[in-house]
Amino acid sequence: MPELIPPATRFVPLPDGFAMRRGGALYGARVAYEAFGRPNAARDNVILLMPGLSPSAHAASNPDDPSPGWWEAMLGPGKPIDTDRWHVVCVNALGSCRGSTGPPSVDPRSGEPYRLGFPELSMEDIADAAAFTVRALGFERLACVVGASMGGMGALSLLARHTGLARGLVNISSAVHSLPFSIGIRSLQREAIRSDPHWNQGRYDEGEYPGRGMLTARKLGMLSYRSPQEWDRRFGRSLLGGDQGAEKEPFGMEFAVESYLEHHARRFVNAFDPNSYLYLSRCMDRFDLGDSCGGSADEALARLRPEKALVMGVRTDILFPLRQQRQIAEGLASGGAGVRFLPLDSQEGHDSFLIDTARFGLPVAKFLSNL
Amino acid sequence: MPELIPPATRFVPLPDGFAMRRGGALYGARVAYEAFGRPNAARDNVILLMPGLSPSAHAASNPDDPSPGWWEAMLGPGKPIDTDRWHVVCVNALGSCRGSTGPPSVDPRSGEPYRLGFPELSMEDIADAAAFTVRALGFERLACVVGASMGGMGALSLLARHTGLARGLVNISSAVHSLPFSIGIRSLQREAIRSDPHWNQGRYDEGEYPGRGMLTARKLGMLSYRSPQEWDRRFGRSLLGGDQGAEKEPFGMEFAVESYLEHHARRFVNAFDPNSYLYLSRCMDRFDLGDSCGGSADEALARLRPEKALVMGVRTDILFPLRQQRQIAEGLASGGAGVRFLPLDSQEGHDSFLIDTARFGLPVAKFLSNL
Repeated sequence: MPELIPPATRFVPLPDGFAMRRGGALYGARVAYEAFGRPNAARDNVILLMPGLSPSAHAASNPDDPSPGWWEAMLGPGKPIDTDRWHVVCVNALGSCRGSTGPPSVDPRSGEPYRLGFPELSMEDIADAAAFTVRALGFERLACVVGASMGGMGALSLLARHTGLARGLVNISSAVHSLPFSIGIRSLQREAIRSDPHWNQGRYDEGEYPGRGMLTARKLGMLSYRSPQEWDRRFGRSLLGGDQGAEKEPFGMEFAVESYLEHHARRFVNAFDPNSYLYLSRCMDRFDLGDSCGGSADEALARLRPEKALVMGVRTDILFPLRQQRQIAEGLASGGAGVRFLPLDSQEGHDSFLIDTARFGLPVAKFLSNL
Repeated sequence: MPELIPPATRFVPLPDGFAMRRGGALYGARVAYEAFGRPNAARDNVILLMPGLSPSAHAASNPDDPSPGWWEAMLGPGKPIDTDRWHVVCVNALGSCRGSTGPPSVDPRSGEPYRLGFPELSMEDIADAAAFTVRALGFERLACVVGASMGGMGALSLLARHTGLARGLVNISSAVHSLPFSIGIRSLQREAIRSDPHWNQGRYDEGEYPGRGMLTARKLGMLSYRSPQEWDRRFGRSLLGGDQGAEKEPFGMEFAVESYLEHHARRFVNAFDPNSYLYLSRCMDRFDLGDSCGGSADEALARLRPEKALVMGVRTDILFPLRQQRQIAEGLASGGAGVRFLPLDSQEGHDSFLIDTARFGLPVAKFLSNL
């Protein structure tokens, strides 16, 4: 699906035989990225940015792609992640469908898309691919790795597996592992896709596409990404009115919140590959920093030892609750890192870092300026 | 589906032409109920019990049906709702499939099941049918109406529409209306059923039954009925092991929480009628005590004027959050009712009243003993 890859995307080829943690290896694979700002002469101003599950590497507008990116307010000249000072490399996760090799990519052995023939995917693979990418670009040491949501899991895994690669860490609305409520939500999202007859064990095409399952999965995602408090404020009990009158079909939409979920989810249905979604979703469930490092999560955090870390979370987050960010901050601090833990009162739940950039911007800017 | 009706169920016929609030009328309809304990000579010891969405009228074991009921620990001789003192009438909601007339019932005009030909259902219809039932049984004044979850909405509606029918009110984990997060969850549950091809606009049968949609809907229900804290404590990140090893099919169950949801949801799939589920679910979304009474919810509450009320809720409830029970208590108190508001620390979320009966029992017993 080349249309899912933003125009300014660049690529780094992965070495043939790139080993996957749960078995198998990739040949002819690549990592997609976008770059912002310029490296300085000392090459010590580099930030690696690891996004959440669905965004591409297009984090912000740049000369090659002036369209707004997913973190437009946070990244650019004079912005909190100031590209006048920093050279930012934003990678698309391995397994995604936005340029990096994943289930919709062509398997060079068969000449056909991998689909479910793609090897099992782990957060460690995503971290290793990101680490390989920045090194291939000539950066042996990063000033900072910034990760939010799934990207925050990837950032922790990267620090655990590539000791000393990054001096600083900004970890936002993330966790050392998924808790059963979020596993349950994601399990239901996958069930919605898998039970769509058009999913067909991953062998869909544009004509027979599991759009219905993707729609339900995305709506459930939206309900868990935002917060009940935000829904109350935005929609209350407003009904659909005027042109948007209630649907005529039985049990069709009547409330504004239903219509909002429907319209926003529709935009996602054909903008993300269903198999990629399943792989990344399961990968988040499985990630466990402790298991990955052969001990407890707290022990693993203590060994990460970034010089400085900023750990942020939001009180209204129901998917990655604040106690998970507190755990990260305390674990890092117990290992001797200089840690600032910042719980925020944003109302937009897990997605707050994408929306309430007024609240996130200043602490990130301050952290980076002191790095 | 006669097998859904417990053996001790009794019936009260509704008058022909029973008018439904949103239009239409029922002919040959009935309300199912079970009775516990005995009325005293003054007939002033009667409690009406209104259940949540899915339970039948079989709230507890009794001589005609010794199987445990859905509130077995709360109701019976010497129990918090002491049937040595109280005569309890538990009604099955109109529109349900457990004995009261609903979508799976036969429409006497056609001789076929109503299915989607059942009139639109409102909480006010459920309340009116319950009020008719107790009066038909010869009880002009109730000592108390007890309602939990959807039943608590019904109890508020009953007091609003049948002034003075009940002296006391016990309202548990309920609300004056649904908020957008719970509307969103229920909308997705309905979507799961409606998008199952076997739902077929309500024209399923045992051979072509929307079991897949019901399964997803129930799992989503379970995730919202309980609390993340309870899932953490019960399951953590336990994997399926031994005989229950991870499923072989792609993206099949791996975690204990997934298996728990699957196995409990499976028991529900064929134990509740999908069309009834859709009707009752939408009815909960639509209920609004304020609209129903032609003003604000707070004004409506102030006019209910039970003599005494006990309003209980649980801090871990994500579906009917505690602020909604506080609203009920404050609104009732502003009208002059003697109100006790009791927020509880139960860990089982919205379903706590079904599980944490140790915490619910004593306050209910005390309230009733002082009634």
